[in-house]
Amino acid sequence: MSDTRLATALSDVTMAVEAELDRLIPVPATLEAQVHEAMRYALFAGGKRLRPFLVLASADLFSVPREDAIRVAAAMEMVHTYSLIHDDLPAMDDDDLRRGKPTCHRQFDEATAILAGDALQAMAFQVLSEPETDPDPAIRMELVQTFARAAGANGMVGGQMIDLQAETVTYDLDQITRLQNLKTGALISWSVEAGAILGRATPAERVALAAYGLDVGVAFQIADDLLDVEGDATQMGKAVAKDADAGKATFITILGIEGARNTAAALIENAVARLDLFGEKAFLLKDIARYIIERRS
Amino acid sequence: MSDTRLATALSDVTMAVEAELDRLIPVPATLEAQVHEAMRYALFAGGKRLRPFLVLASADLFSVPREDAIRVAAAMEMVHTYSLIHDDLPAMDDDDLRRGKPTCHRQFDEATAILAGDALQAMAFQVLSEPETDPDPAIRMELVQTFARAAGANGMVGGQMIDLQAETVTYDLDQITRLQNLKTGALISWSVEAGAILGRATPAERVALAAYGLDVGVAFQIADDLLDVEGDATQMGKAVAKDADAGKATFITILGIEGARNTAAALIENAVARLDLFGEKAFLLKDIARYIIERRS
Repeated sequence: MSDTRLATALSDVTMAVEAELDRLIPVPATLEAQVHEAMRYALFAGGKRLRPFLVLASADLFSVPREDAIRVAAAMEMVHTYSLIHDDLPAMDDDDLRRGKPTCHRQFDEATAILAGDALQAMAFQVLSEPETDPDPAIRMELVQTFARAAGANGMVGGQMIDLQAETVTYDLDQITRLQNLKTGALISWSVEAGAILGRATPAERVALAAYGLDVGVAFQIADDLLDVEGDATQMGKAVAKDADAGKATFITILGIEGARNTAAALIENAVARLDLFGEKAFLLKDIARYIIERRS
Repeated sequence: MSDTRLATALSDVTMAVEAELDRLIPVPATLEAQVHEAMRYALFAGGKRLRPFLVLASADLFSVPREDAIRVAAAMEMVHTYSLIHDDLPAMDDDDLRRGKPTCHRQFDEATAILAGDALQAMAFQVLSEPETDPDPAIRMELVQTFARAAGANGMVGGQMIDLQAETVTYDLDQITRLQNLKTGALISWSVEAGAILGRATPAERVALAAYGLDVGVAFQIADDLLDVEGDATQMGKAVAKDADAGKATFITILGIEGARNTAAALIENAVARLDLFGEKAFLLKDIARYIIERRS
């Protein structure tokens, strides 16, 4: 594994997806411009662009045209960003900072933040459904359908619902795993699956990528929990150890720090093994999987 | 026009769309069930089901199978309901009652209400994209694409953004018209257009129905403003005269009560005239248009 190779690829994806988002969401010269400004503020507040990276790396396995895959990557980032905006609201996590900058509702106001999140979700489905994403409407339809499932009540939003209750209910390992599979795993897994859909993958390839995505998603969440305990606020750009302070069960309260680290490592090795059928060309998906548990912020 | 005919049709649509919503959103036996309960609470809190009615009446012009059109009607009602849930939040209109019952965030809590709205939006796109909605993926994609536009930053959400600013900016007639075209008109117009998309309407038919929808949408909003001033809280099931109290410009503050009533009537006559090319079979769309400005709640 080459750190430089991965760093270059990450930086390329960040530039490409930000250019696409910039193109897809211009600020109109009309009365409603503030909602566009809030959408852009949240979209361009930084971030690792992990999910767009996974979309593009997966699509590259099948030589999907970059101009198609980048739209799917942008749609993914829109939904991820909307979930962060709503998650940061006073009624939810009540966070003032995100990546070292004021959260959307602190920069604008709560109502604008709610609307910006709502509009980002709509825009994501709009982008997926447009002919520019793929010439075949059946492929676009499959993207919309699987994405809506992964983002909704039986996916990401369901995971957030479970997470909300974690302050009053003490979950066991199975329950924490379900929480994270829905909250983080569903969209991370979809990012990888989306590349397979665009790439007309075989059923075996698609199953392998979806399984890789689920494992990476849970490992990512464990790594996040570890950073929450071990990280320092400057590096993270947000308040740390909030979950532990709130008395919430996490992978770490259940497995301990060493146990959690070992579980994450095992998940990543498992995820990487799933990619064997792609041979050498899956190197970026392998690199990013290992990076996820090694990152410091 | 027959009042009984319309009342029967409205009641049939209400029963059909509620049965479909019940089928589409079961409460799972899993940890995230509360978000489904909140979605259902808001969906089944009553309401005129005007938008589903428009979808079905429009689809009937083209003899679209009822089992297809009802799914589109249900998706429409999901997005309408999500917009009401978010609109009622403390950071937005801060309403405790909706149709005489506690609003979603009063019945559950704010976080659950935010999530229920988010999940309803995702579910709407999921339903539109599924093969059961129409066998042709190109038709489903056109539904998703036009719906996402009508619901997003350049449609309904944009209108809500303009509306939020109405407490600090005094709009003129053009600006109020834009506000309402986006906030209410876009989705009402889409409801009618959706029937045309499902029905493989000719371009002329589709233009006529979209124009009918926009006129009806603005007339509906004027009628709402009139009820806001003239209605009584018992009949409306919510606080009345809120807009006037907040010093917001409305069609009525600009046009006066008589002027607003005349404008709404002219819009409805215009809307009805658009339907001439369908002849007699457009009777329900004509009936509902006239009902909209005559209703008392």
